[in-house]
Amino acid sequence: MQFSSQLIEDAVEAFASLPGVGRKTALRLVLHLLQQPKEETDKFALGLTRFRHGIKECKKCHNLGDNDICNICTDHKRDQQQICVVENIRDLMAIEDTHQFRGVYHVLGGVISPIEGIGPGDLYIEDLVTRVKDVGAKEVIMAISPTIEGDTTIFYINKLLKDIDVTVSGIARGVSFGGELEYADGVTLGRSIIARSVIE
Amino acid sequence: MQFSSQLIEDAVEAFASLPGVGRKTALRLVLHLLQQPKEETDKFALGLTRFRHGIKECKKCHNLGDNDICNICTDHKRDQQQICVVENIRDLMAIEDTHQFRGVYHVLGGVISPIEGIGPGDLYIEDLVTRVKDVGAKEVIMAISPTIEGDTTIFYINKLLKDIDVTVSGIARGVSFGGELEYADGVTLGRSIIARSVIE
Repeated sequence: MQFSSQLIEDAVEAFASLPGVGRKTALRLVLHLLQQPKEETDKFALGLTRFRHGIKECKKCHNLGDNDICNICTDHKRDQQQICVVENIRDLMAIEDTHQFRGVYHVLGGVISPIEGIGPGDLYIEDLVTRVKDVGAKEVIMAISPTIEGDTTIFYINKLLKDIDVTVSGIARGVSFGGELEYADGVTLGRSIIARSVIE
Repeated sequence: MQFSSQLIEDAVEAFASLPGVGRKTALRLVLHLLQQPKEETDKFALGLTRFRHGIKECKKCHNLGDNDICNICTDHKRDQQQICVVENIRDLMAIEDTHQFRGVYHVLGGVISPIEGIGPGDLYIEDLVTRVKDVGAKEVIMAISPTIEGDTTIFYINKLLKDIDVTVSGIARGVSFGGELEYADGVTLGRSIIARSVIE
């Protein structure tokens, strides 16, 4: 699709540079902006610019926030000695949405993946060990995706924490709630039988 | 989904205000911007702001462009006496993409729709009649969607142009090229039999 206007071309190109947005969708978004008052576009652009320049990585847990230390780390109602280790901020947000965890987080920034060239040094692992020692953490909960890379990362971290007096736990793995057994994948179902627990 | 950061909240809200973008997708886009250099976000925001403030409606045909008269209207290789009437800019772009038309356009800005409260006065119809007279147009091609509202609009415009010495034509309607007859909808198929043409 070619446009007779360079301004449209630039605006479409901008949207189309986002993941999952093609040129047709981009054009629809651009024409949508045109139907709104100019101030809406200004607000949109300003919000993004402010966000990109103002957002800070928490110096404690590497979560994103408006200040040097994020809202979760500064919340004194939360248990600072219970640290939930997550891969990225999206996972942190997903756990926060469950309202089931009242401790603090530690964002690794990824998982160990030799194929993608990500080693332990590329992640905030050393940082985690120092933090566990410094705050005298009672529990480290590994909330890492159940993949080969995830398990490697858990194994690696667990080894580093072995000599420290801290409980290392992993989130439960098994069949999903509300799912039908016959549609569960074989690996998950098989492991959930092996890891069965006594019903009391 | 709640965010611990107001900046993230604002940025997500900005994207989520666009049509077809939910909060989950918005978050994905926001986190994508975060992985790019800050300059990318600046470029993105600037492109949109420039577009929104700089874009102009062509004074002749109501197409969008960078100047008062659009590139199509100023193109002297195009036949200024052959005017293709379209509903909106998206339709204009779709026709341009076919590379089958070398005349000029006239964007109505919609179709007559009593249900939505759009009357002839809300569209650039009077404008079209004046233009047809002024340039001494030879042909007006109605490239309007084949809906009840579209047909009403065509009928209305045709009546206004009746006393002017100009050919009014409509784009061909029938079964799609490359489509299988059995899957064509009944109305289209029925009308395409009635409007059959002699194969020479």
